[in-house]
Amino acid sequence: MELVISVEGIDRPGLLRDVASALSNNDADIIYNVAYGEEGKGYLLFIARYEGDVEALEDAVMSIKDVDSVESAPLGAEAADIIAEYVEVNPAISGSIAKLMHPSDFIEVIARLDEDARRKVYPVMPRNLIGALLAEAPHEILDEVSTVLKPRDLAEALANLDPDDLVDVLQGLKPSVRKAVLKNLPKAKVDEVRPLLLYPPETAGGLMTTKVPQYLPSTPVSKVIEDLSTRTDYEISDTVYVVDEDGRLLGYVNVPALFKVAPKLPISKLARKDYVAVEPLTDQEEVSRMMIKFDITKVPVVDEGGRFLGVVTIDDVMDVLISEESEDLLLLGGVMRVEHYLTARITSLFKKRLVWLLVLYLMENVTARIISGYTGFISRVAILAAFIPLILGTGGNAGNQSVVLVTRALALGELTIRDVTRVIAKEFMTSALLAFTLSPVAFLFAYGVSFNLTVSLSVSVAVALVVLAASVIGALLPLVAVVFRIDPAVISAPLISTVTDIVGLTLYFIVASLILGIAKL
Amino acid sequence: MELVISVEGIDRPGLLRDVASALSNNDADIIYNVAYGEEGKGYLLFIARYEGDVEALEDAVMSIKDVDSVESAPLGAEAADIIAEYVEVNPAISGSIAKLMHPSDFIEVIARLDEDARRKVYPVMPRNLIGALLAEAPHEILDEVSTVLKPRDLAEALANLDPDDLVDVLQGLKPSVRKAVLKNLPKAKVDEVRPLLLYPPETAGGLMTTKVPQYLPSTPVSKVIEDLSTRTDYEISDTVYVVDEDGRLLGYVNVPALFKVAPKLPISKLARKDYVAVEPLTDQEEVSRMMIKFDITKVPVVDEGGRFLGVVTIDDVMDVLISEESEDLLLLGGVMRVEHYLTARITSLFKKRLVWLLVLYLMENVTARIISGYTGFISRVAILAAFIPLILGTGGNAGNQSVVLVTRALALGELTIRDVTRVIAKEFMTSALLAFTLSPVAFLFAYGVSFNLTVSLSVSVAVALVVLAASVIGALLPLVAVVFRIDPAVISAPLISTVTDIVGLTLYFIVASLILGIAKL
Repeated sequence: MELVISVEGIDRPGLLRDVASALSNNDADIIYNVAYGEEGKGYLLFIARYEGDVEALEDAVMSIKDVDSVESAPLGAEAADIIAEYVEVNPAISGSIAKLMHPSDFIEVIARLDEDARRKVYPVMPRNLIGALLAEAPHEILDEVSTVLKPRDLAEALANLDPDDLVDVLQGLKPSVRKAVLKNLPKAKVDEVRPLLLYPPETAGGLMTTKVPQYLPSTPVSKVIEDLSTRTDYEISDTVYVVDEDGRLLGYVNVPALFKVAPKLPISKLARKDYVAVEPLTDQEEVSRMMIKFDITKVPVVDEGGRFLGVVTIDDVMDVLISEESEDLLLLGGVMRVEHYLTARITSLFKKRLVWLLVLYLMENVTARIISGYTGFISRVAILAAFIPLILGTGGNAGNQSVVLVTRALALGELTIRDVTRVIAKEFMTSALLAFTLSPVAFLFAYGVSFNLTVSLSVSVAVALVVLAASVIGALLPLVAVVFRIDPAVISAPLISTVTDIVGLTLYFIVASLILGIAKL
Repeated sequence: MELVISVEGIDRPGLLRDVASALSNNDADIIYNVAYGEEGKGYLLFIARYEGDVEALEDAVMSIKDVDSVESAPLGAEAADIIAEYVEVNPAISGSIAKLMHPSDFIEVIARLDEDARRKVYPVMPRNLIGALLAEAPHEILDEVSTVLKPRDLAEALANLDPDDLVDVLQGLKPSVRKAVLKNLPKAKVDEVRPLLLYPPETAGGLMTTKVPQYLPSTPVSKVIEDLSTRTDYEISDTVYVVDEDGRLLGYVNVPALFKVAPKLPISKLARKDYVAVEPLTDQEEVSRMMIKFDITKVPVVDEGGRFLGVVTIDDVMDVLISEESEDLLLLGGVMRVEHYLTARITSLFKKRLVWLLVLYLMENVTARIISGYTGFISRVAILAAFIPLILGTGGNAGNQSVVLVTRALALGELTIRDVTRVIAKEFMTSALLAFTLSPVAFLFAYGVSFNLTVSLSVSVAVALVVLAASVIGALLPLVAVVFRIDPAVISAPLISTVTDIVGLTLYFIVASLILGIAKL
């Protein structure tokens, strides 16, 4: 294991040497260290290979004279916090440390620096490391790097990326910067990515790799094997594709199959046609769903004329699955898309959250007006107000449950719009059971607070009605969204809570005035 | 494209023939059809290969005498609804239709049948199709099949599954049924799955395949190639593993590398050690996160002694990603785990939703008591009640936004518990901006409804405070859950809305009584 160890103590000559020898004596093999002093304190950072007991190692260091505290974590995202403290003070060390870490882990270090320090890190890092980082960075970091580095330097940083990563980065740049970077990239590289830039990043065409082994039907198997064993730039190595003179896809061959036949056999004899292909503009979410459904790790991309353009591989799609699913999570929680929490600017988080909260205000206008119509009633029976949160909460929760159940089933392809009557029936029956159970609970609950039989009866009836209404409305909202071709996750979350608030309050006050009116007679 | 066409008309001799020839005349190549009559009506179902314009085909059928309606959909999940109508009437046809569909699509047909029909379908389907279905079925269907079919028949159905699918199905069965099925499976099959049954289904050991090519270090490359080209039962074909006499993993070799060296070379010379391995009890979510992070499609599973047990492949993990992510979605929405919406029993949905709604009641007890403490105040200023939903809604939404932002960042590994001060600072600043913006909006809003300056001022101050409190609490809840080793998604959703309700109402009434008290002086 590679361990990051941070030591704090009184800044004295020999402290670094003492700690280093304590680490070595405990079989920790130091591969990097850096130190600085500030206001009489010494701060030492070590990265070491170590297989033993971490606590014993920390204790050994703590027992050194003048050492005040020791902190350690495995080299990776968990150590980002510790490393960031040292990089903040001395940005020049970032290159040496980044070399030892996975790029996505070093991004976590960067995410923990303040903006000044971040802007100092980019110019001092080796260019090829910057490239590897950018292939995995959230767009806020990409934006920063592209303003700090000159297009020429940026091009140098990106020159070693695989075409599909390069395209992702290029498509994340502002158009003017992208143009300038393309001018500074080697011509061969530009030719490679040019066709990929044609497709939006969230489509099969934007995701595919073009470095795919492909052969004419007449190519003998021996030639295919020879090509596979000499070329090193293919991004796919376990499947080859057979393509005719016009570039049309004829089939594919699994590499192991090549070794079961005579070397002279033309590759076309092995070509299998049992593949599913997608068009370049097919949405990435659909591509990922196909891969899951058919349990495949590669999907060829073919244009309308049957021309073979490239292959989408499963690792591209994994990122898609993660980002699409967690985007739904954010949307249902009432936040617009956010790429990385720590790197997201506060003003950007503010804007992404404000919209939703303001929409809520427009809707709550209705609830406020409903209640204000009953102020006379409320001043007579003020205890009614005590159960407003209960009614709203019950409606909101029940509605939200139906929304997520149906939204998820739609996303997984379990439901289609044709199933609307099945969904309503299911929601109605489930919520009838819920209403039947919750209604007496609500009665007892309300009586325990109010000691008022008619008010408790009103609450109990209103709860039953609101559960029924909220469940059916909650299940219908995502289906209606689908009909209007809106992402169900976008529309359902903000609507359901306010719609159930309105329905719930109206039902509550109508029921209460009816029951209390009757009770008075 | 394969198209499903359902035709309804007056039941008369020759109707089937007329429709069939209309389809053939329009170049639709019928591969399956079935028909039945009921109460003077005829119902015809066709599955046909067809590449032309679907509307034109439907029009051609509609123009036939006595045809009342035509419906069509591509053969797949979208056609599940249409097909289910015919299977419901005549379960015997399910085998022929299932053979033409992907198992996961036919599950959608089954999900749309009522329980009686489902129980009639299982015994009439070919056993091997049942096996393929069960490998993808939600547990409600597995339960049903295992009560309808005898263990002997179930074993026959499962005998052709790959070991990892077989294990999944076996682990989904009740222990008594599992035992009986194992007794009826061929011994070779049982030996294959026995080691896999040792590990819980949601761990690396439960997911891995053991059909992996593995060789002793001295094996010459030529022997490896020979073995790869003759064996057909490996589930992994692009990587081989090198293992010593004691079964310890020494390294791996990519298959293409085998063809770049002399055939006599011992395989150990090619073995690469740059792999990451997991232990058999590593949670599946961690395995999937590692694959994404390192962009790899296979992870070897190695026990504590370094013994090589098998390999987790990416297709197993894709299902995991989907189910774990969408499980979080359900949990945040206040529903326990549900596998498939349509097959889930109503009583099971009821139970999964009830828990949450009852928890809410316990919490709303507090809000009701808070308000009931202010009834005197409310009967004097009844309009205060009008803004309870606004205060609760604002707090709930702001808190929920923070919960999803932080929960997602934790799930993606962007945040750790060490970042707590960073998170609080970020939430505080974002919510201060939100409070600053929303507070005047709330004032205008409240004034527009109440025309009461002091009430509007109270609402405005309470909104600002509740946004601040809810955002910080919402961000802290998932972090606290992590400290106590609870899934943040489980605890945060129900807590945040009730905690913000309590905090929001308390703040609102304190602020209102202070401001109205001061105004009176």
